Amino acid sequence: MQSIAELFNAMTSGDRQALAKAITLVESKLAEDHISRLRLLDLCHATPKESTRIAVTGAPGAGKSSLIEKLGLEMTGSSEAVAVLTIDPTSERTGGSILGDKTRMTDLSRQENAFIRPSPTSGVLGGVAEMTRETILLCESAGYTRIIVETVGVGQSETAVSHLVDVVLFVTIAGAGDSLQGIKRGILETADLVAVNKCDGSGEAASKLFASELSQALLLLRGQNACPAVVKTSALSGLGVSELLTHMDTLVHDRRANGQFNSNRAEQRVKWFDDATAFLLEQHISSDNTLVQLRKELADRIQGDQANPYAAANELVSRILRD
Amino acid sequence: MQSIAELFNAMTSGDRQALAKAITLVESKLAEDHISRLRLLDLCHATPKESTRIAVTGAPGAGKSSLIEKLGLEMTGSSEAVAVLTIDPTSERTGGSILGDKTRMTDLSRQENAFIRPSPTSGVLGGVAEMTRETILLCESAGYTRIIVETVGVGQSETAVSHLVDVVLFVTIAGAGDSLQGIKRGILETADLVAVNKCDGSGEAASKLFASELSQALLLLRGQNACPAVVKTSALSGLGVSELLTHMDTLVHDRRANGQFNSNRAEQRVKWFDDATAFLLEQHISSDNTLVQLRKELADRIQGDQANPYAAANELVSRILRD
Repeated sequence: MQSIAELFNAMTSGDRQALAKAITLVESKLAEDHISRLRLLDLCHATPKESTRIAVTGAPGAGKSSLIEKLGLEMTGSSEAVAVLTIDPTSERTGGSILGDKTRMTDLSRQENAFIRPSPTSGVLGGVAEMTRETILLCESAGYTRIIVETVGVGQSETAVSHLVDVVLFVTIAGAGDSLQGIKRGILETADLVAVNKCDGSGEAASKLFASELSQALLLLRGQNACPAVVKTSALSGLGVSELLTHMDTLVHDRRANGQFNSNRAEQRVKWFDDATAFLLEQHISSDNTLVQLRKELADRIQGDQANPYAAANELVSRILRD
Repeated sequence: MQSIAELFNAMTSGDRQALAKAITLVESKLAEDHISRLRLLDLCHATPKESTRIAVTGAPGAGKSSLIEKLGLEMTGSSEAVAVLTIDPTSERTGGSILGDKTRMTDLSRQENAFIRPSPTSGVLGGVAEMTRETILLCESAGYTRIIVETVGVGQSETAVSHLVDVVLFVTIAGAGDSLQGIKRGILETADLVAVNKCDGSGEAASKLFASELSQALLLLRGQNACPAVVKTSALSGLGVSELLTHMDTLVHDRRANGQFNSNRAEQRVKWFDDATAFLLEQHISSDNTLVQLRKELADRIQGDQANPYAAANELVSRILRD
């Protein structure tokens, strides 16, 4: 059996299968994997690597995957190693992952310096899986310099994802339900860059009009200085892909220069600490049969109005803390 | 010194000062009040009372307070006892409460069977204070049959408040930034009733037009069966206040009849249990100097990238659990 040190060494010498295995270990909810996970993350943290973390968010059907593939190819073309953490649309519905999903980015997955990983998501946070931060760290240790996290821009996902990345790219299209009114304000307030996608064929005129409307709305909402660039893109023709990348690089370069990049990352690490604390406490409870049983019994009694929720919580907490 | 049993007895025999004192005890973050709080809530839970819990949400300036006062007067007029948990607009900004705020509902506060309490809110959840559920329970034990919770309809507050109440009333006005586009979709999706307020004087025509636009938008968004009623109101003239109350009563009556009221309350109690568990765990940590110190040290090291957030969280959790 492979030790954690061996797995780490394989993973950092370009073995993509080892990286996939390491991610599976980190995503594991098994209590017995806890120590291995800790050891692996410690090894990664001890050898930090530079990277740019990019979230690509937008409603289903906006063409995120195709655009990510084009962006990824442009990046690998200029010798960057790209890791893409995608949403598995099947797993969003069924809870299970399918290998077939990987074929959505056929060209990119053929590249030597690209790694594509579907996330097992509960769908709750629009594809931001519980262990996304840890997965990003693994990919960075494995040498990937650009990490793209695909999310569905619904509900709280825009806030959740902004805690994970350096740049948020919002992908939208003209028409459909995705008119100005349909776009969640949270997304418009969080996005660092906007792509109006599918600007091709019969949709070109409508896309151009929509892009200009969107620019004006963003200017009103965010003001001159904080207004994100709106780029017309087509994953089909490749329109706007380089431009998008240039905007992204300029943004990251400027933020590195003015210190915003580092202060943002520092803040994100503290948030990670808080979230991991809550996650590990929950893990502790749900891996202890006595606590699981007690929580279930209390919840049943509460549902039947046989127990006071506050007192029940107090009882559970006392048992968690072994008071 | 008054015992908890004495405080409870005073509170349930109509002593409003005792109720105010009990709420202060429940809101207290002092570790030494923990046992008293538990005892008081246990007494309340042992003698359950029927009530209708109503959230009134809407942007600042929509006239929520004035409308709540009119609604409250209508309720007290028909022999209901009304408790209003208001947002203290001062405390939203400064963190402190002022007595002066109470005078916003002068007429209602003069009623024998009305109780008005400003909430100490951090502003984060738009006026849904941490102990709002516990405060509602106290008011019910004290004999109040209608509990009105005022919140500011921003961010996540609409979701937070829907976990606390039986009916959500959204108050809005024509014009200003509160056009259709300006209203958060979450609010339109959660509201059980909508009041287009300030339908008086020179604003009357615009209010009527806006009410009809809003009705159409809600019909599209929610469909015929789930579409909330839109009522034109004026806190100035009293227009629509009785109508609003009738809609509210019908809604609650129907939901009691079809079982939705009870299943909703059961679900809310379980959510309360989960939230109280998280709250009490956090209370445990922040009342233990060693843990507070450790958390601060770890956060500092994480901020300076001297520690791995996941490993640090693991260290903190181990100490919390005394492993």
